[in-house]
Amino acid sequence: MSKRLQRTLVAGTAIALLPFSLVSGAMAAGTTAQEQPAAASKNVIVLIGDGMGPAQVSAARTFSKYKLGKNSLELDSYYVGQATTYADRGEDGGTIVSGEVTDSASAGTAFATGHKTYNAGISVSNEDVSEPFGSVIEASELAGKSTGLVTTARITHATPAVYAAHVRNRDNENAIASQYLTDGDVDVLFGGGKQFFFSKEEKGKRTDKTIIPDFEAKGYKVVYDKQGLASLGSQTGKALGLFGNSHVDYVLDRDAKVPNLAEMSQKAIDILSQNPKGFTMMIEGGRIDHAGHANDLSSLVQEMLDFDAAVKVAMDFAKKDGNTSVVITADHETGGLSLSRDNIYEINVDDWDAQQKSSELIGGELKNAKSRSEVKAIVAKYTGYEDLTDAEADFILAGDGSSYKQEGAFNAVMARKYLIGWSGHGHSAVDVGVWAYGPIAEKVKGQVDNTDIARAVASVAGLDLAKASEQLQKEYLYPKFKNSPEGAALFPARALAEALGAQVSWEGAARKVLLTSANGSISVSIDTSSVQWNGGESGLQAQVDHDVLYLPLEAFSKLTGKSLKWDALSERIKLQ
Amino acid sequence: MSKRLQRTLVAGTAIALLPFSLVSGAMAAGTTAQEQPAAASKNVIVLIGDGMGPAQVSAARTFSKYKLGKNSLELDSYYVGQATTYADRGEDGGTIVSGEVTDSASAGTAFATGHKTYNAGISVSNEDVSEPFGSVIEASELAGKSTGLVTTARITHATPAVYAAHVRNRDNENAIASQYLTDGDVDVLFGGGKQFFFSKEEKGKRTDKTIIPDFEAKGYKVVYDKQGLASLGSQTGKALGLFGNSHVDYVLDRDAKVPNLAEMSQKAIDILSQNPKGFTMMIEGGRIDHAGHANDLSSLVQEMLDFDAAVKVAMDFAKKDGNTSVVITADHETGGLSLSRDNIYEINVDDWDAQQKSSELIGGELKNAKSRSEVKAIVAKYTGYEDLTDAEADFILAGDGSSYKQEGAFNAVMARKYLIGWSGHGHSAVDVGVWAYGPIAEKVKGQVDNTDIARAVASVAGLDLAKASEQLQKEYLYPKFKNSPEGAALFPARALAEALGAQVSWEGAARKVLLTSANGSISVSIDTSSVQWNGGESGLQAQVDHDVLYLPLEAFSKLTGKSLKWDALSERIKLQ
Repeated sequence: MSKRLQRTLVAGTAIALLPFSLVSGAMAAGTTAQEQPAAASKNVIVLIGDGMGPAQVSAARTFSKYKLGKNSLELDSYYVGQATTYADRGEDGGTIVSGEVTDSASAGTAFATGHKTYNAGISVSNEDVSEPFGSVIEASELAGKSTGLVTTARITHATPAVYAAHVRNRDNENAIASQYLTDGDVDVLFGGGKQFFFSKEEKGKRTDKTIIPDFEAKGYKVVYDKQGLASLGSQTGKALGLFGNSHVDYVLDRDAKVPNLAEMSQKAIDILSQNPKGFTMMIEGGRIDHAGHANDLSSLVQEMLDFDAAVKVAMDFAKKDGNTSVVITADHETGGLSLSRDNIYEINVDDWDAQQKSSELIGGELKNAKSRSEVKAIVAKYTGYEDLTDAEADFILAGDGSSYKQEGAFNAVMARKYLIGWSGHGHSAVDVGVWAYGPIAEKVKGQVDNTDIARAVASVAGLDLAKASEQLQKEYLYPKFKNSPEGAALFPARALAEALGAQVSWEGAARKVLLTSANGSISVSIDTSSVQWNGGESGLQAQVDHDVLYLPLEAFSKLTGKSLKWDALSERIKLQ
Repeated sequence: MSKRLQRTLVAGTAIALLPFSLVSGAMAAGTTAQEQPAAASKNVIVLIGDGMGPAQVSAARTFSKYKLGKNSLELDSYYVGQATTYADRGEDGGTIVSGEVTDSASAGTAFATGHKTYNAGISVSNEDVSEPFGSVIEASELAGKSTGLVTTARITHATPAVYAAHVRNRDNENAIASQYLTDGDVDVLFGGGKQFFFSKEEKGKRTDKTIIPDFEAKGYKVVYDKQGLASLGSQTGKALGLFGNSHVDYVLDRDAKVPNLAEMSQKAIDILSQNPKGFTMMIEGGRIDHAGHANDLSSLVQEMLDFDAAVKVAMDFAKKDGNTSVVITADHETGGLSLSRDNIYEINVDDWDAQQKSSELIGGELKNAKSRSEVKAIVAKYTGYEDLTDAEADFILAGDGSSYKQEGAFNAVMARKYLIGWSGHGHSAVDVGVWAYGPIAEKVKGQVDNTDIARAVASVAGLDLAKASEQLQKEYLYPKFKNSPEGAALFPARALAEALGAQVSWEGAARKVLLTSANGSISVSIDTSSVQWNGGESGLQAQVDHDVLYLPLEAFSKLTGKSLKWDALSERIKLQ
């Protein structure tokens, strides 16, 4: 293990050390967003190129120049600055996941709410008992504006989720889908992720039920393909478009039923722009990132151009409308893309479109290849390369040693032909570009941090982020927890008690933890795990795990006199 | 060979195909610079971070934050945009060296003169017979301003050279040193490169003579160390500071005699700012690039901070002065640096200063290591790492397969510890940042090309780039040439004749090349190589090499009636 990770892990572990949960669990506090009351723009469109680092932009422009005869990208003329992207240091499930290199959840929380958090956190604070942060979409709902989220990733994926959901772990996509229904009021939701809206019986991933009828009951028109999207009129009001079971297909793999990002964006704008109070929306090129993770340059360039076409849709609207700000950025770079390799002063742009399908699709076939000749045949079929060497074919057969296996090895071979490099399958910490149009441009120009984007959106549209946070924080807490062997949720005693306003102390002689409030006190013997309420037996059970004391929610209800409810799907405590 | 290189090479080769030199050799024409007469700034300071791509900047800021407790770089608050850097497609000595990935010569020519050229070209056009391009420094000399070049690289290296010298090949550093003396009039020259000013007898690399006395005769005070630099008063007028035999030592390897870039810059400004007509200067952080080529992150970060300190010097002066524009950019990214690797969401910033010396110095010792244990001892001595594995030691012993050998392997091992990645030892094609202060900021903001930087400098300081080019073009041509076995220079017949205004035709039946002008005609039999002047014997000898017809300079003198002189040092024809 590297020194830094080791050090960070030790620091993380310290939180859980004796005396039990008496060490404060707060790792970092968010700063307060600075809103301004005056609204310079009625509408704001935020566009996020997921994984769109500087090299991704340069790659797309270079491809555009040589293969499409277009010297610049749509977004080029709006370049105003760059943003730092670092995450809060933090851990998730005992593993250090955060640091300088952010994931989409942490970066998204930053530019949606104005607060840093740990990787994996969806608009919740970086604490053992997290508080939710209100987003510019939620603040827009409070202001009576229409709102929309559009993406080529799953609509339940991190980047859209940070705008309208709150969970400790981004992987809880069933909860994110449900929160879109029950908590927020986003008018237009277009993307992939159908599986998180359907029960297992209906080929989805939900254990509870299919929630499409609930969306329909709430007034959503639900569509599943390009034709369905086209059928939505501008007076639709609320719409849920699910254009893929998981992510929307890569550009290279799409059939005629799948809309592109520009089409989704245009339709969303048509619908949202009917509101006289204006709208706020986020459009994500979600699969630039996936292509980066896989190291699939051909797909990456196509996803970039798909995103760039959506930029044009947004800018065309903004210019015509005259009362719209547009801001474009990325959450982070993905893949450590380098536009050169091996000390050669050229890149083979001519070949970048040799690949006819995504490496995901090609890799699906390569996975089943049994011999060099099968590998060579598959590569030739999809790329036109007839000259794959035996060594290259063997490498592809064996896989690249990462979870991308044959697909990763195929992309490594192609990278040599393309004369480009990748440093791995993860994200990197380089600053990302910022592009803008309208009054927001002045607020995000120069060197900024990704949290500045949220503040700029709020400021330019007159949104009250603090109020949005306050309302959410009155309702929910997002604690770390563990399930008892019987399946009951148990909560870290000190962290949750303090988050609820109680005092915690350690009685060394008696080896007891004491939780006190105006309401009464709970005393827990560390040796016997017995729990006393105001000096008498409570009937409650404590657990000590890795030196942290856990108690059931009922203990905290007694202690605070509040009616606390556990939402097992969203893994949060409802406070009222 | 990759397809793209193959295609480009074929295109390049076509220039030299039959009928002999009848195909035009011009590969691309530069565009005319657009100057504006009004001068918004009396002084302009251009700062170039050589090899300073986006990840280099992010790396330095991150290091600064964690190790120095400083959350931003000096340059951060001046960020205004980014620049494309691509080179003209071109070849040098038969090898394709240019394309999307620029070198420092081509990029420097772009931001010094406003013209694209091929890699290796120092402010000359991308043609078989190149014309010189005037730079903002040369235009400043025409305007009576003082001028300066300051760098931690050799003062004869590409980036300073493009501002005040013209050669077809950047490696001709003896010529560059001589041109600083004979052609231009740069007042302050600070950097390394002492070897190109001294004869071989005096431990230099010049075959002619030591040229220091000639600089002194021209009024230059010549200094060689930090003390000498400090001794220069602001009224010095002209100064030549040579602070290294080759490049100025890396920050990590410097002793007390070596000034840093900020000290050189401050002194240069002190001297240049005495001119009431103002000054134009270029300050280069030249070794960011070298650390990038070697993949030496520890040095790279230190060179970045050395450069950033010079940025502060420039900005402090500009703010105090009130009549100065500052623009900062890079020529290209070097090394394909990625701030992450292997899908780990952290970078080990804490360790980035473990390395006590540059990898160049450490590699010098590793080169002589004979065993694993010697390698381990050297690595431990310079980095504190006692835990080098046998496999790592063996890898370092064997070298990384590049010309960096043991040094490269050492850096590859360190990169794994630092959790960063490199794509090779060359440059890459990602856009580079642009930072600016003063009136120039408006002219270089957003998405620009590196040629825009030259035009912006000229515009803001009221410089006439076209006039500077015109004056140079009246004096010199820079032809491709070859030496005959006897050592005489021979020139491509068609390309040079046309560049001199003569006509060229091919008489297929007679198998003769005919060069004609108002002055007369030269006829060359391809089969016998005999050269006739106005129908009679000329006494001249032709040569055909790789299907290109070559003639001695005398033939062109006869043809044009001009007195053409060959400058063998600068490899150029003097026209008058």
